[in-house]
Amino acid sequence: MSVASNPRTEGDQTLSMTERIAGVLSPVVTPFKADLSPDPERFVRQCRWLLGQNVGLAVFGTNSEANSLSTEEKTELLDRLVSGGVDPARMMPGTGCCALTDSVRLTAHAMKLGCGGVLMLPPFYYKSVSDDGLFKNFAEVIERVGDRRLRIYLYHIPPVSQVGITVGLIERLLKAYPGIIAGAKDSSGDWNNTKAYLDNFAKAGFDVFPGSETFLLQGLRHGGVGCISATANVNPGAIARLFAKWQAADADAQQERLNTIRGIFAKYPMIPALKAAIAHYGSDASWATVRPPLVELTPEQKTSLAADLDQAGFTMPGLKS
Amino acid sequence: MSVASNPRTEGDQTLSMTERIAGVLSPVVTPFKADLSPDPERFVRQCRWLLGQNVGLAVFGTNSEANSLSTEEKTELLDRLVSGGVDPARMMPGTGCCALTDSVRLTAHAMKLGCGGVLMLPPFYYKSVSDDGLFKNFAEVIERVGDRRLRIYLYHIPPVSQVGITVGLIERLLKAYPGIIAGAKDSSGDWNNTKAYLDNFAKAGFDVFPGSETFLLQGLRHGGVGCISATANVNPGAIARLFAKWQAADADAQQERLNTIRGIFAKYPMIPALKAAIAHYGSDASWATVRPPLVELTPEQKTSLAADLDQAGFTMPGLKS
Repeated sequence: MSVASNPRTEGDQTLSMTERIAGVLSPVVTPFKADLSPDPERFVRQCRWLLGQNVGLAVFGTNSEANSLSTEEKTELLDRLVSGGVDPARMMPGTGCCALTDSVRLTAHAMKLGCGGVLMLPPFYYKSVSDDGLFKNFAEVIERVGDRRLRIYLYHIPPVSQVGITVGLIERLLKAYPGIIAGAKDSSGDWNNTKAYLDNFAKAGFDVFPGSETFLLQGLRHGGVGCISATANVNPGAIARLFAKWQAADADAQQERLNTIRGIFAKYPMIPALKAAIAHYGSDASWATVRPPLVELTPEQKTSLAADLDQAGFTMPGLKS
Repeated sequence: MSVASNPRTEGDQTLSMTERIAGVLSPVVTPFKADLSPDPERFVRQCRWLLGQNVGLAVFGTNSEANSLSTEEKTELLDRLVSGGVDPARMMPGTGCCALTDSVRLTAHAMKLGCGGVLMLPPFYYKSVSDDGLFKNFAEVIERVGDRRLRIYLYHIPPVSQVGITVGLIERLLKAYPGIIAGAKDSSGDWNNTKAYLDNFAKAGFDVFPGSETFLLQGLRHGGVGCISATANVNPGAIARLFAKWQAADADAQQERLNTIRGIFAKYPMIPALKAAIAHYGSDASWATVRPPLVELTPEQKTSLAADLDQAGFTMPGLKS
């Protein structure tokens, strides 16, 4: 599928199981209660708000503090989303763990619930591992889950995982599991890598999502299908609008505007800053809570972030419950 | 405790709950069946063999492929060791996970079983995290486990985890949780870091284990209490003998001999090489199995490793069942 052959519009919020996920997705930040347990009510509410902004749900991404959650906690949160009425076809949960058995368990659960796809990190504890070992990891997950509806998006984020997804690995996986290997999120921050994915695989139906909206327009112009971005947690509407109207005359100006907002968040530790903004604009202080090893922004940082955003005319319409 | 005030001897295989673990420990390699599930029978047998060589059990270390196992799999293997008659006082299982809730669950389980201590990685997915965040992580685990008998050994292995344990962090943790913060394993491979741990904290009862037997003698001479080393999986007797007789006249020659054997293994990917050696010298080919993302040595590598070891006069006495 390419964006051109199957454009998404702002009103398009349904997606059948056979249709591929495209557009803008948010690695949804995970709310915690004061005791650091996940807060399913706030999570469901946030996901509904994002869907209302025409942004899909890459829950359990890096910005979700997913790797600070146990497999049980993730399984339970997925259940709560679905029982809370959130459409699983709009979900691309992160299911790649260090342990093969955890990856299989989470992926199978996502499939059982009807998730539109899964975003899969490579196992990230052991470093300098071979493509043979990574191929075996993904192949084992696919074989054990054993469901032809499975759509895997490979998650390349070397600055954090330190274990990457090479072009050679994608080539082998696509050959072995066409259709199931559905695409990638590229959070390398390196356009040359995104372009290599696009040039090599976009025509074969491999859907590439840059990992930041700063590459949204550039990606779409080269055959990408959207983006999955931290700041889609806080600026979803504007990012989704650029996706919907990327061929409009003012697209470059819109991209500039997105970059400005992104740039403000990038001055702070990203995850605590996203949560601080939701706490501030949603008038709900508990949203600022993070799990260790992350720490909240300091009061000074929170004030400064809000001031910077206010000055830029930033708002989060409809967030307040 | 210092080595001088409480020397361990070769015959000393019992250790009460109040006595600190010291000496040589092995991050026990985890055997897998053909379907990649853990093999509890072989695991119990291997642990018994290691104890018989006077080597303690740092199960679920890096070399154990612990981070390729789910929390459930680790919990079950610990249960099987104890029900298999392996003394928990000789165990220092790795219980530090990315998710706070997993670390708490595993650590509490280890305490319930009476383990002599736990070896705790910092949460390792998020990079460039602050000492504040890491302090909070360890503090939360300690508070939630809530057991004064807990003995935590901090696990510093920046080449793999990419998240380290600074001297400043140890200082804060020791002040907040004296007695519970019991020591560290230093797998930095950097003697200056090991020496900084020793110089700052050894006199306060903080037990430092270098992460390789190549630093065993040097560590003991500067107040260390032993070592926790990959190659203690395959060369346990000789390493334990140097620990027991480190003040003997031939200690430096013994250290040289250990370094030679270590050097042979270091020419290969370590974990597959350890398993290949156990498979070869124990005449049990299934031991070579690793979980992805690791891969077994090639047949050529296995042959070459065995030839190198044979030539060096290496043996694994008593391994064959």
